[in-house]
Amino acid sequence: MSDTVFDWLDAHAEDRRKAGLARQLRPRTPDNGVLDLAGNDYLGLARDKRVTGAAAAAALRWGAGSTGSRLVTGSTELHAELEFELARFCGTQAALVFSSGFAANLGAVTALSGRNCSIVTDSAIHASLIDGCRLSRAEIAVVGHKDPAAAERALATRRTERAVVVTDTVFSVDGDLAPLPDLITACRAHNAALIADDAHGLGVLGDGGRGAVHAAGLAGAPDVVTTITLSKSLGAQGGAVLGPRRVIRHLVDNARSFIFDTGLAPSSAAAALTALSILKEEPDRAERVRTVAVDLANRLRAAGLHASEPEAAVVSVRAPSPEAALRWSDDCRAAGIWVGCFRPPSVPDQISRLRLTARADLTESDITRAVQVITDHAPR
Amino acid sequence: MSDTVFDWLDAHAEDRRKAGLARQLRPRTPDNGVLDLAGNDYLGLARDKRVTGAAAAAALRWGAGSTGSRLVTGSTELHAELEFELARFCGTQAALVFSSGFAANLGAVTALSGRNCSIVTDSAIHASLIDGCRLSRAEIAVVGHKDPAAAERALATRRTERAVVVTDTVFSVDGDLAPLPDLITACRAHNAALIADDAHGLGVLGDGGRGAVHAAGLAGAPDVVTTITLSKSLGAQGGAVLGPRRVIRHLVDNARSFIFDTGLAPSSAAAALTALSILKEEPDRAERVRTVAVDLANRLRAAGLHASEPEAAVVSVRAPSPEAALRWSDDCRAAGIWVGCFRPPSVPDQISRLRLTARADLTESDITRAVQVITDHAPR
Repeated sequence: MSDTVFDWLDAHAEDRRKAGLARQLRPRTPDNGVLDLAGNDYLGLARDKRVTGAAAAAALRWGAGSTGSRLVTGSTELHAELEFELARFCGTQAALVFSSGFAANLGAVTALSGRNCSIVTDSAIHASLIDGCRLSRAEIAVVGHKDPAAAERALATRRTERAVVVTDTVFSVDGDLAPLPDLITACRAHNAALIADDAHGLGVLGDGGRGAVHAAGLAGAPDVVTTITLSKSLGAQGGAVLGPRRVIRHLVDNARSFIFDTGLAPSSAAAALTALSILKEEPDRAERVRTVAVDLANRLRAAGLHASEPEAAVVSVRAPSPEAALRWSDDCRAAGIWVGCFRPPSVPDQISRLRLTARADLTESDITRAVQVITDHAPR
Repeated sequence: MSDTVFDWLDAHAEDRRKAGLARQLRPRTPDNGVLDLAGNDYLGLARDKRVTGAAAAAALRWGAGSTGSRLVTGSTELHAELEFELARFCGTQAALVFSSGFAANLGAVTALSGRNCSIVTDSAIHASLIDGCRLSRAEIAVVGHKDPAAAERALATRRTERAVVVTDTVFSVDGDLAPLPDLITACRAHNAALIADDAHGLGVLGDGGRGAVHAAGLAGAPDVVTTITLSKSLGAQGGAVLGPRRVIRHLVDNARSFIFDTGLAPSSAAAALTALSILKEEPDRAERVRTVAVDLANRLRAAGLHASEPEAAVVSVRAPSPEAALRWSDDCRAAGIWVGCFRPPSVPDQISRLRLTARADLTESDITRAVQVITDHAPR
């Protein structure tokens, strides 16, 4: 009997294999000579010696782990300093660091909604926001992708007093922008709050990389909550929620993914803090990553590929099928260019694609080589 | 309008304050001279120079972050080696590392249950398992704390073909043990799988600290899945799921908290790997932490306090109210002993208590001092 309890997994795995959707982990070496257009290290800071040096020094000084939840032993002065600097940089009253962006999104969405609240979401929000909605026990209305009029209708017809609109600022798959000005107008017309996940905006958009929420003039707004990650532009690990002081206080008291999780490792907090200080000193990095993305997309389109028009650092290139996308990305990698391959269920529209990420530290010759390889291996 | 959207938080905060339940973050210094009986660094490895040295070296060699999700750029050889060693140590076919124990629990519970499955849980399981159940869309049956007969009845009367029993092995608040042998008997009588969260068992219980699931002879069982954390006995950050190879493969394809999360930072993977090798070389650490816990509890009871009978590393001491518990723990800290203070909603039975954690590196004089301070400051 005990041997058969997981037999159902085999049929499930076989279905995925037949559909070309079986996933495989392929561990990398420290330096594999492959040009990375797949990761989210947008500013090239994950391997910056100042950042890695800060991570190393913090591990030696503070310990390898934070030793407990943030409310018991897991809050160090590093966490507090990082929260202060993140809030100051992004222009919010306060910030709260979580162990991941996923956890930050779960915490923000659940603690700020609840049974007597409606959540209105874009259909293409990140999985962690979706899971936050599922956990929230709120009334959920999913509206079309980047359709603020539909969001407004959902707000207007809701049955609850409270409401929250939840969106990515930069959608993770195609890198397109949410209509933040229209969304906040809808929110304010209907007494709703806005939760915006700026994971792919921080370090890339806005003045000096302050993010899409800052760029929209909403950073210090009393009705806007921003979530970010420390693992993309800031090259580390972790996530954070930024917003009004009373929101942050409420999360400390109520966000389950904050209260019941071990605090972020001190080395990751220190790395993010140093990356943030570099971004402040070298604000051109944000502009550079956007320029690289546009250049990359223009050249791929010139070569006849269906590349997106990048509004941030992400360029997506459509593929005819999951199998073709996988083969294409495998061929690119074999030829020295590492690109992402997004297939269902990681894509909202069930269309498989290559996903390329620009980095501030890509050179002219990197871009030329990448375009050549991606074009050469494109499916007919 | 925008100013008032979060007004409801103020009333909520005031209610918590009146109930003595407002939480406060108190960031610590690297070495505050306070004796730590509050963290979960059971084996004293978080600050071990070998562990912190490995974390530092990995940050310098691999970068501060893993740069992407595990399925894109976030899997390094360090992650693969850690997974191999965790599985080998704990006696399972395979392992999968997540960015936190919270994420590991969400992933295991959701991916192994689903709509056409029943989940039977102990009423005192960890918040992350509860959230996994809430996300799962399964039929949920919550049974009494450590009541395997009730679990069996729930399995016998379920309406779905598939079923999973979900439990902590060592309950986090009081440190008491789940009845694993009776639970697995119930599972096998009714064709159900067992998911056991061994966060507080690994490094403390079983042969050389192989955990409670190993101690129960269930480590390699085809119907048992174990979740662990890298942030307690292993002194780092992160979590993992251990079990049959087909279960791990299924999680790679299906666990949303794995697929859509950035991979664990290389420094944390390296720290956990080194801590694991130390535990293998110094297996007495596991026995020592249990001896310290029993000694601590015996002496507190001898002093007239309501201390639990520890079955692992946790000792809980009941307090008459949330306010009294908070004052007690504050007074202990002012006197140089840091103890945890657990209050609703972090406690399943709404009873506030001090929560003390034993560590393998506590000395005789540390224990004497701790008992003296805790007793001296006990509420009348």
